Amino acid sequence: MHTVIDYLRRNQARFVAELCEYLRLPSVSAQAQHRKEVARCADWLAAHCRLVGLETRIYPTNGHPIVVAKTPRSAVGPGKKSKRIPHYVVYGHYDVQPPEPLDLWNSPPFEPRIRGKRLYARGAADNKGQHFAHLKAVEAYLKTGTPLPCNITFVIEGEEEVGSANLEPFLRKHKAELQADTIVISDTGIPGLRYPALTYGLRGIISFEITIRGPKTDLHSGIYGGAVDNPAHVLCALLAKARAADGRIAIPGFYDDVVPLTDYERRQLARLPLDESDFKRLLGVRRLFGEPGYSTEERRSTRPTFEINGLTSGYQGEGSKTIIPAWARAKVTCRLVPNQRPARIRHLVCNFLRRACPPTVRLEIKAGAGAEPYMISPESPRAQAALRALEAAFGCRPLLMREGGSIPIVPQMSRLLGAEVILLGLALPDANAHGPNENFNLDCFAKGQLLSAHLWQELSRSN
Amino acid sequence: MHTVIDYLRRNQARFVAELCEYLRLPSVSAQAQHRKEVARCADWLAAHCRLVGLETRIYPTNGHPIVVAKTPRSAVGPGKKSKRIPHYVVYGHYDVQPPEPLDLWNSPPFEPRIRGKRLYARGAADNKGQHFAHLKAVEAYLKTGTPLPCNITFVIEGEEEVGSANLEPFLRKHKAELQADTIVISDTGIPGLRYPALTYGLRGIISFEITIRGPKTDLHSGIYGGAVDNPAHVLCALLAKARAADGRIAIPGFYDDVVPLTDYERRQLARLPLDESDFKRLLGVRRLFGEPGYSTEERRSTRPTFEINGLTSGYQGEGSKTIIPAWARAKVTCRLVPNQRPARIRHLVCNFLRRACPPTVRLEIKAGAGAEPYMISPESPRAQAALRALEAAFGCRPLLMREGGSIPIVPQMSRLLGAEVILLGLALPDANAHGPNENFNLDCFAKGQLLSAHLWQELSRSN
Repeated sequence: MHTVIDYLRRNQARFVAELCEYLRLPSVSAQAQHRKEVARCADWLAAHCRLVGLETRIYPTNGHPIVVAKTPRSAVGPGKKSKRIPHYVVYGHYDVQPPEPLDLWNSPPFEPRIRGKRLYARGAADNKGQHFAHLKAVEAYLKTGTPLPCNITFVIEGEEEVGSANLEPFLRKHKAELQADTIVISDTGIPGLRYPALTYGLRGIISFEITIRGPKTDLHSGIYGGAVDNPAHVLCALLAKARAADGRIAIPGFYDDVVPLTDYERRQLARLPLDESDFKRLLGVRRLFGEPGYSTEERRSTRPTFEINGLTSGYQGEGSKTIIPAWARAKVTCRLVPNQRPARIRHLVCNFLRRACPPTVRLEIKAGAGAEPYMISPESPRAQAALRALEAAFGCRPLLMREGGSIPIVPQMSRLLGAEVILLGLALPDANAHGPNENFNLDCFAKGQLLSAHLWQELSRSN
Repeated sequence: MHTVIDYLRRNQARFVAELCEYLRLPSVSAQAQHRKEVARCADWLAAHCRLVGLETRIYPTNGHPIVVAKTPRSAVGPGKKSKRIPHYVVYGHYDVQPPEPLDLWNSPPFEPRIRGKRLYARGAADNKGQHFAHLKAVEAYLKTGTPLPCNITFVIEGEEEVGSANLEPFLRKHKAELQADTIVISDTGIPGLRYPALTYGLRGIISFEITIRGPKTDLHSGIYGGAVDNPAHVLCALLAKARAADGRIAIPGFYDDVVPLTDYERRQLARLPLDESDFKRLLGVRRLFGEPGYSTEERRSTRPTFEINGLTSGYQGEGSKTIIPAWARAKVTCRLVPNQRPARIRHLVCNFLRRACPPTVRLEIKAGAGAEPYMISPESPRAQAALRALEAAFGCRPLLMREGGSIPIVPQMSRLLGAEVILLGLALPDANAHGPNENFNLDCFAKGQLLSAHLWQELSRSN
């Protein structure tokens, strides 16, 4: 390991220069005018993987191509005869979010600039910089002739920012060769450089569009007000009923499948650095709010929600317009936690709304397919191995955290490749992923390489 | 009276031609490009009043001019020595709504056309045709030398469709000469030609804009959902709380000042022709709805309301956006009934919302000044006189009704001129006032003249 670590240290400047080259390619998957640039970026990445010493192929899809790069057989040490050599998949994506609005950037998004410890460019943190750290760690093994304790396959797609539509068919087709012991993804964040963390759970999600239809057209509220039900009022009453005043979701059965937090988890979550006054300041609210009996950290990552994302009805312009609106609509998303299933929650929410809706109006519900929540045991050997690698790389005791957001491909990949996913995010809270002045802290980049180098050892030991 | 009625009958064709001339003038008060046309229309009306035999003046205002036309002293019969000669004011407006959208009209809005019994033009029903009927009735008295039992002053303004801002200062200034025994306004409607009606009450109104502010910016519902209150949810809960499930307003004190309906009123309202199934068909709703213990007619005209006119919050576009919106807003109007006061209801609603609003968000309320409700006793000699005139003109027993809408100038004029207002609308339900293909039924026009001719006799007798 000493050789590997030394190689990483000595080549830091070159790695940053290479990452800059990678970031210069405007691989914006959402914009048709960048189609060629996305393909060029895949080509660049594949060429780079070959330079690193990986067996690389570009797989075309119905959308943007997927780059697959494997460590060669020769790279793996002999191991113990009795033991199968483990296989790990590193997932990442080379596509980036659109850079707009351009005028809010301090330097052009595809002209990487270093200011202080940060490298500014679209895709720096999300996700080029993060998977590039793993690539450089594997390079260190290969170039120093240090035997790897495992096989590693990089699967770097080009459609993460547009919904990964072609990833599932690809994984399904290449299931056999991609069967893995663990999937490693660095595409999330950590609270700070001194707070490295393993993210061991994600919330799922299901979305609803709830429409209440009343009279066939907007009615004059003077002529008919009081004699016909108001769809906006019905909508408000239904939504109000779905949540108790204390923040608990009041939909029968909503919490039935939720796995309670263990004492170990609660102790770990309590170690996260932000306290209640930090949150209040950050969000600009007078008081925090949420389900009784849980801390802010627990509420925002380990508890399910029923959240109104938008309301639309009647007149929204200046002044007043005296109508009974013909219809009212709410956009709602529920965040789900292990072991809730989107289909079950869809059923419960729809049933609840249908039962609560009065016969004076018509209720229409459009529900999405949703995404599963995800969790691995934080006490499992795999998680503990990741924690040891984090500690070795960052030089301090790592945290265990759960992510409140949803990453649909995580449960999907896990199911398809028959492996657990460990999430080792490297982005700091102010990395501005998806926003202007996206940046990646170069210390995160360097420590990410160290983390990766240690991870293969620790994971293989725990296998 | 016979001579008067005979004059009206003989001159019907000319009256219609004159009304068409009046309707050809595009007196759209809201549109700056019509400013000159509005002035020309006032000039035409004043000239016409002079031809009729009225002492006429055009009063300029800060906006459009007001035409005032009085019966000359010579027109009034000697009366009894012991009795003061009564003075009645007829209010109307010569300005009209904008005609747009033009493509929905079957003939150009300012080229009056007769099809069947209807005269189509912008302003035909609202309000040129209606006050013109009164003008023609007075003409019949003047031209036949039939002594009038009263003095009559026409006050025809040019800003009703833009809020009558200059009417109050005008009335205040000319208070002494305009002091009246009764004010007559024909600017509302009746259920049908066989259902002539006296409108003896109007609802008032007060409007609110209710804004709930939460976090300083829209938040990612994955990262923060569950840990911070959702302004849209708070808004829904507040609004839901304001109305009980059965339709009663649940704001403490809301009904305190409401004058209960008398048995006489309820019997009269029950005579109105539309039944529940007519309403359901008309509005396109499955079921009607409203305060228990009241009929649809009673609910829509004699009971106060708390009506949501619009909702705005967060994401309203296609698909879903997973945010906790930073704010949510509702537009609400309350219809008020005699004897509710806008200031008192504003106080009650604001208090209710402030008390019900949780400390996790900020509540902002903008409330309008509102308009008073209005009512005269349907059993008063004045109302009974109007009913007799209606019966004489239409040849059937008239109805007593209340209007659910609000006409702010009615309580205003009543207060300023120290007189009760009687509302004798002549428009049929499909007159399309404010809409395309506005029309005035020529039978309504003719019967309106008869009504006016009888009204001066009946009112003077009851004085």
